[in-house]
Amino acid sequence: MKDWDRLITVEEMEAATASLLENGKKVGADSWQQRVKNQTPHCGFGEAGTCCRICSMGPCRITPKSPRGICGCDVHGIVGRNFLRFTVGGTASHSDHGREIMHTLYETKENGNYTIKDPEKLIRIAKEWEMETEGKDIYELAHEVAVKGLMEYGKPFGTQLFAKRAPEHTQQLWENAGITPRAIDREVAEAMHMTHMGCSSLPEALVHQALRAGLSDGWGGSMMGTEFSDVLFGTPKPIDTTANLGVMEKDMVNIVVHGHDPSLSEMVVHYANDPEMIALAKSLGAKGINVCGVCCTANEVAMRHGIPMAGNFLSQENVVLTGACEAIVVDIQCIFPALGPLSKCFHTKFITTSHIARMPDSEFIEFSAESAAENAKAIVKTAVENFKNRTPELVNIPDIKANARVGYSVEAIVKVLDGVANSQVDTFGTTKPLLECVTSGVLRGAVAMVGCNNPKIRPDYAHIELMKKFLKNDIIVIVSGCSAQAAAKAGLMDPVLAKEYCGAGLKRVCELAGIPPVLHMGSCVDISRMLILAAELSKDSGIPISQLPVLGCAPEWMSEKAVSIGNYVVATGLDTFLGVDPYVKGSSEMGEWLTGENGIKKWVEANYTVETDIEKMGDLMIERIEAKRAALGI
Amino acid sequence: MKDWDRLITVEEMEAATASLLENGKKVGADSWQQRVKNQTPHCGFGEAGTCCRICSMGPCRITPKSPRGICGCDVHGIVGRNFLRFTVGGTASHSDHGREIMHTLYETKENGNYTIKDPEKLIRIAKEWEMETEGKDIYELAHEVAVKGLMEYGKPFGTQLFAKRAPEHTQQLWENAGITPRAIDREVAEAMHMTHMGCSSLPEALVHQALRAGLSDGWGGSMMGTEFSDVLFGTPKPIDTTANLGVMEKDMVNIVVHGHDPSLSEMVVHYANDPEMIALAKSLGAKGINVCGVCCTANEVAMRHGIPMAGNFLSQENVVLTGACEAIVVDIQCIFPALGPLSKCFHTKFITTSHIARMPDSEFIEFSAESAAENAKAIVKTAVENFKNRTPELVNIPDIKANARVGYSVEAIVKVLDGVANSQVDTFGTTKPLLECVTSGVLRGAVAMVGCNNPKIRPDYAHIELMKKFLKNDIIVIVSGCSAQAAAKAGLMDPVLAKEYCGAGLKRVCELAGIPPVLHMGSCVDISRMLILAAELSKDSGIPISQLPVLGCAPEWMSEKAVSIGNYVVATGLDTFLGVDPYVKGSSEMGEWLTGENGIKKWVEANYTVETDIEKMGDLMIERIEAKRAALGI
Repeated sequence: MKDWDRLITVEEMEAATASLLENGKKVGADSWQQRVKNQTPHCGFGEAGTCCRICSMGPCRITPKSPRGICGCDVHGIVGRNFLRFTVGGTASHSDHGREIMHTLYETKENGNYTIKDPEKLIRIAKEWEMETEGKDIYELAHEVAVKGLMEYGKPFGTQLFAKRAPEHTQQLWENAGITPRAIDREVAEAMHMTHMGCSSLPEALVHQALRAGLSDGWGGSMMGTEFSDVLFGTPKPIDTTANLGVMEKDMVNIVVHGHDPSLSEMVVHYANDPEMIALAKSLGAKGINVCGVCCTANEVAMRHGIPMAGNFLSQENVVLTGACEAIVVDIQCIFPALGPLSKCFHTKFITTSHIARMPDSEFIEFSAESAAENAKAIVKTAVENFKNRTPELVNIPDIKANARVGYSVEAIVKVLDGVANSQVDTFGTTKPLLECVTSGVLRGAVAMVGCNNPKIRPDYAHIELMKKFLKNDIIVIVSGCSAQAAAKAGLMDPVLAKEYCGAGLKRVCELAGIPPVLHMGSCVDISRMLILAAELSKDSGIPISQLPVLGCAPEWMSEKAVSIGNYVVATGLDTFLGVDPYVKGSSEMGEWLTGENGIKKWVEANYTVETDIEKMGDLMIERIEAKRAALGI
Repeated sequence: MKDWDRLITVEEMEAATASLLENGKKVGADSWQQRVKNQTPHCGFGEAGTCCRICSMGPCRITPKSPRGICGCDVHGIVGRNFLRFTVGGTASHSDHGREIMHTLYETKENGNYTIKDPEKLIRIAKEWEMETEGKDIYELAHEVAVKGLMEYGKPFGTQLFAKRAPEHTQQLWENAGITPRAIDREVAEAMHMTHMGCSSLPEALVHQALRAGLSDGWGGSMMGTEFSDVLFGTPKPIDTTANLGVMEKDMVNIVVHGHDPSLSEMVVHYANDPEMIALAKSLGAKGINVCGVCCTANEVAMRHGIPMAGNFLSQENVVLTGACEAIVVDIQCIFPALGPLSKCFHTKFITTSHIARMPDSEFIEFSAESAAENAKAIVKTAVENFKNRTPELVNIPDIKANARVGYSVEAIVKVLDGVANSQVDTFGTTKPLLECVTSGVLRGAVAMVGCNNPKIRPDYAHIELMKKFLKNDIIVIVSGCSAQAAAKAGLMDPVLAKEYCGAGLKRVCELAGIPPVLHMGSCVDISRMLILAAELSKDSGIPISQLPVLGCAPEWMSEKAVSIGNYVVATGLDTFLGVDPYVKGSSEMGEWLTGENGIKKWVEANYTVETDIEKMGDLMIERIEAKRAALGI
């Protein structure tokens, strides 16, 4: 294995992919690269959002000669309805992930499959929710908190409990605009209702509900997903790991965990360390068991156990193409159905585990909190026993691997900041040291980079190039999801290496604090951590979130979740930059609502910018940060 | 006005429409007929369900050269996901209507805007839900029932309370298949999650959730909508009214109520009878105020107040085209956005009232339970004051009107049956007299006809021709929604007239019971009444629902609600016939799941038939009824 003393380039990653595709060719494997070719060009109506099939009178498509659908809906209504439905596809998914976590919390017990790893955090949240905590057994409390959390999905009255974490000013904006989120599932159902044939076709109404639904995700379902994952599995702390395809081990049983819900992956990691399983692996000629992650599951287990990250969304086929993947074990979301037929070209077992994500050509081992131990053991055993079925000639693991320090929860960031605070003058446990860096100009600002890969953007290139640009300009970058893995794969989370790519100010901060300039905050539900951080910065500084030199950015997003995220990030007051259009370019009115001065900006003091030229996007973002600084007089 | 001594033909209705379109031409009005021309041919991918834009990597379309989407999803997964999303668009809409009713129930008080009109029904349901009713003020009880009902949308544990109304056998089938519906909003959110990028692409899983979500509508949200509308506004009893465009009055202020939720229309009807408003109308030269209905709102107010029914879904533009519509007041669902620009061609006020259905070019008077009286008064006043703005030359009310007896709730049907029961041998308060008619062969069976209009089918023709065919064959027809209005408009609910179109057996039953052969059971949420009727027939006979000679049919459906309905009707055990394909023809596997012997039929003993040839559909249905009779040996 090479010793990487510099960032891994996108070109090197692409070369690795090319060599894997050659491997695939030998066995007749299909690939997303080929399917993109088959599916291009895309339907122009679909891409512009101007096609409607919400009722069976259609489908209808808007053209100059047919400016309205059969029901009379105009292009703005059609694009708007599609946008709202796209949003709540994401809201529902993120939040349902959170719900599963709450059900796992409900199933915890002393010495059970799942236990409470961070009781302090549980008690802290219970108090925040105004629950009685004194004298209660921690599992009794967990049970009560789980029920209360589950009610956040369905309570008939009231708004999200966590919404009170936002700064007063933000809460007031939400109240004024009528977008304080109510029960999460209700926001989803109401959005589906509003977009039913013959309901709303006014962009204002549709965008309004898109923001409210998004907020129910960010300050509701996602935040519960994050907070109670911490309670269950431990609140992340900085930990060192490795990233990129070279983390797969030629001589070991490779189990790739992929998906989102840590309830599964935590158990797989646990049983992969089981001496009985390791002995079995050795008896079959392997040196041991190597678990590595793909997609958000990788983030979850990396930040809690240092499990290496094999790749992000568009690397998921690559792990199978190495010929060295005994099993790819998945739960929910962002899993290519292509893994079914692809795994059949190799010896790989494609194991689905959730009734939410059933796929053809997979082995279905249904996973549940009640039977988690036995399920996980069965999965690990299946993988180990599959080692013998490898075809050695097909094994091709690219020699490409970076070091990464991950696990920057808000708690961890505050702790890092305490470490650099001046004990003479500073308060501890706040974001003030970070604010001081920003105010003094040592740091110019911060960018939250999130989101997926999308073949419409050269994979990882936008993430990595934007990050490099920001670092050079003394802008600290916080990341999650597939953006985090792009950074990790390139080496931008290597605290030794990455600081060399920073401007002088940021470099100094990294050295002082012992952090990489790109901070790994977790998986895509963990963007809620970024909301909390932004809220804390606002509270600690007394400056509204929208005036802070902090921006959001999803340059390579592809999923509905990303749009739900976009809506809650914008609605929280952070200007948000997208590298892919969310199927709204067909409507000038929707454009104005989302990106103009007279749309959502009037409600939440922030809006979107869609810019497919990534270089230009970076420049715009730096300009925006400097403009915010200038407005603050710093 | 002519005296109609025979059925009104579809040709006559079409001639009336043609004359109205001429009226529209004078003022440059657009029409759905024109828009259908502009939108034809439809996109073949959309119609086959083989286009996917669930993530922003696409849109993808399945062709022989591109058999998989970029993620690798095959055609069955794409069609299946689209089908599930289509279903829950309907589930969410119906159920959200039910939720609004529960909120109205929650707002009831002695002498309030809303009161309890059927306290016995409220108490009956409270007892069914195992609530304490003794010694409670009726409004205290209403409040508690409303909260419990609202929890049906979001409770974290357990299944729908009303599901226990189904026959034991049906409940057992649901249990075995795992489709007993949980909280309604959860079923919607879970469906959105399952269809997110990288979740389910296995038809079995998608169809499974479509049935469960549908059941949460039929035995959940819709049933609550129906039952508590009865509690609030009275349980329907047979009442005489008139139907078709001739119900509009040349010399009166015409207020058309359109949409679904009776909370609005009930209040409008009330204030249209206000002496102050009538006096105002007279002072402005009108002879009075005439409220008439369109779409399901028409059903709601017809069956409780005998308000005339101007038309169904595809007649909604016609009422404006008469030039005699002072206001068209709408709430939610199935409202053409076209009414905005169309109303601007006339003097008509297009008044939207719900935040769920905001539309351009409308006057928005937000309606809420708290301010219902003042909202309704403002709406009626606006309409009355608009009378003076009529253009007399544009007034063209077609001379076409039928008598109709409507209002056959299950309670009303049982009462009718009690009237014909033999007091010597029969039990009262059951469906047994009806079963006896069926067993003896006097009636061959029953068909539940429901659903919308759809320009893909000659409007009302399928409804009316199928009904005539069934009547002739001694098959009694129960109807709701726009199918009910098609029947009413033609005269098939005229108890004097319609029996002449029946076979000898059915004619005898009609005469004996004093009923029309087509029984009006209400609006589209009231299909839940049909479920209860089917359940009662099964319990009273001891025969599983699927073995009864009873079928469901939606020959002209167009909305997502219709597919949600289809799923719960089928899942309740009734074979269901559709005249329009639900965008699934692109997948053989989905076809097998929905219409084959090895799909849902194995779970619920019933399946779909899609048949666009309406003549053939009628023959198939009669065959099916006779086959079920033969199997029962009757």
